[in-house]
Amino acid sequence: MSSQPIKTDLPWDTLASERIFENPWFALQQDQVRTHTGAEITYTYMQHPGVVAVVPVTADGQIVLIRQYRHTVKDWCWEIPMGGYDEDNSELVARKELLEEAGGVCQDLKYIAAFSAANGVGNIRCEVYLATGVELGSSQPETGELIEVAAKPRSEVMRMTRNGEITCGPSALALFLCEQHFPDR
Amino acid sequence: MSSQPIKTDLPWDTLASERIFENPWFALQQDQVRTHTGAEITYTYMQHPGVVAVVPVTADGQIVLIRQYRHTVKDWCWEIPMGGYDEDNSELVARKELLEEAGGVCQDLKYIAAFSAANGVGNIRCEVYLATGVELGSSQPETGELIEVAAKPRSEVMRMTRNGEITCGPSALALFLCEQHFPDR
Repeated sequence: MSSQPIKTDLPWDTLASERIFENPWFALQQDQVRTHTGAEITYTYMQHPGVVAVVPVTADGQIVLIRQYRHTVKDWCWEIPMGGYDEDNSELVARKELLEEAGGVCQDLKYIAAFSAANGVGNIRCEVYLATGVELGSSQPETGELIEVAAKPRSEVMRMTRNGEITCGPSALALFLCEQHFPDR
Repeated sequence: MSSQPIKTDLPWDTLASERIFENPWFALQQDQVRTHTGAEITYTYMQHPGVVAVVPVTADGQIVLIRQYRHTVKDWCWEIPMGGYDEDNSELVARKELLEEAGGVCQDLKYIAAFSAANGVGNIRCEVYLATGVELGSSQPETGELIEVAAKPRSEVMRMTRNGEITCGPSALALFLCEQHFPDR
């Protein structure tokens, strides 16, 4: 017996859709929607091209974190290299962000998983890559980014992650998702 | 010797701030900012009151997931109960969402951690609670929510989480963060 999809058709209909704000990084979309109950509602959400996040592991098994100032939360956050989808494919974005934010190049790059960062208010898709055999040079941050780079033992980084010290949610989730794929040393 | 804060002053100055969109769930804030380099930039981001996410564990050790249709991604997502911060305190929000989305009440509720869902484009703060001794009744979804409830063995849920099947990022991260706090059975 072949398995059947549980759901086939979309339960909500989009009756109209208007872009009410746009900048180079995201847009705000306002949809008129008929829900499964027949109710008509206005649903406004962020349309985003998506991001690629890279968990960088060095040849001697350290994980490379970056510490970045974030204007949205007025705070410094421990993160992994991550950037908006602005290339032909996500592997290119991963290599570019690893180089720009951490000054790193890698021997191997492996796709791990993808998730939505905030599916109630936007379609921000985050693709996770594990980069191994990473060698660090000097970071080349974009204008507007304020970043420090720190390579730390894997056990220390996963302790920080489990204890909630990695307050950038997508970075923390990417580290958890990569944990079972880390190289043996 | 007392420990010293690494960073004291904010490295970026907000010169002006304007609310360019607002609905009952979030706002769009447009700031003129002077960065650490002296450059003046426009930074537009989502201002959000925050959400509370609850990992519900039943008395016999199952985890309660919900399967919800999300218009932003036009798909069904496995999630945990989660909702916007609209009460006096986050414990009340946690109990309300557990009841409304999963029809559950709990014996104990424990704060675990907090993170930012997407700190490049917004200040969406997610507080994570672990609810134990959960008993399920019937769910009471808000108008506009389309939800199915499923209690599954903890091992099965954590397998789904590790394999990237929980595509709602904050839900997956909340499950990982709670894992070391699960009760013994």
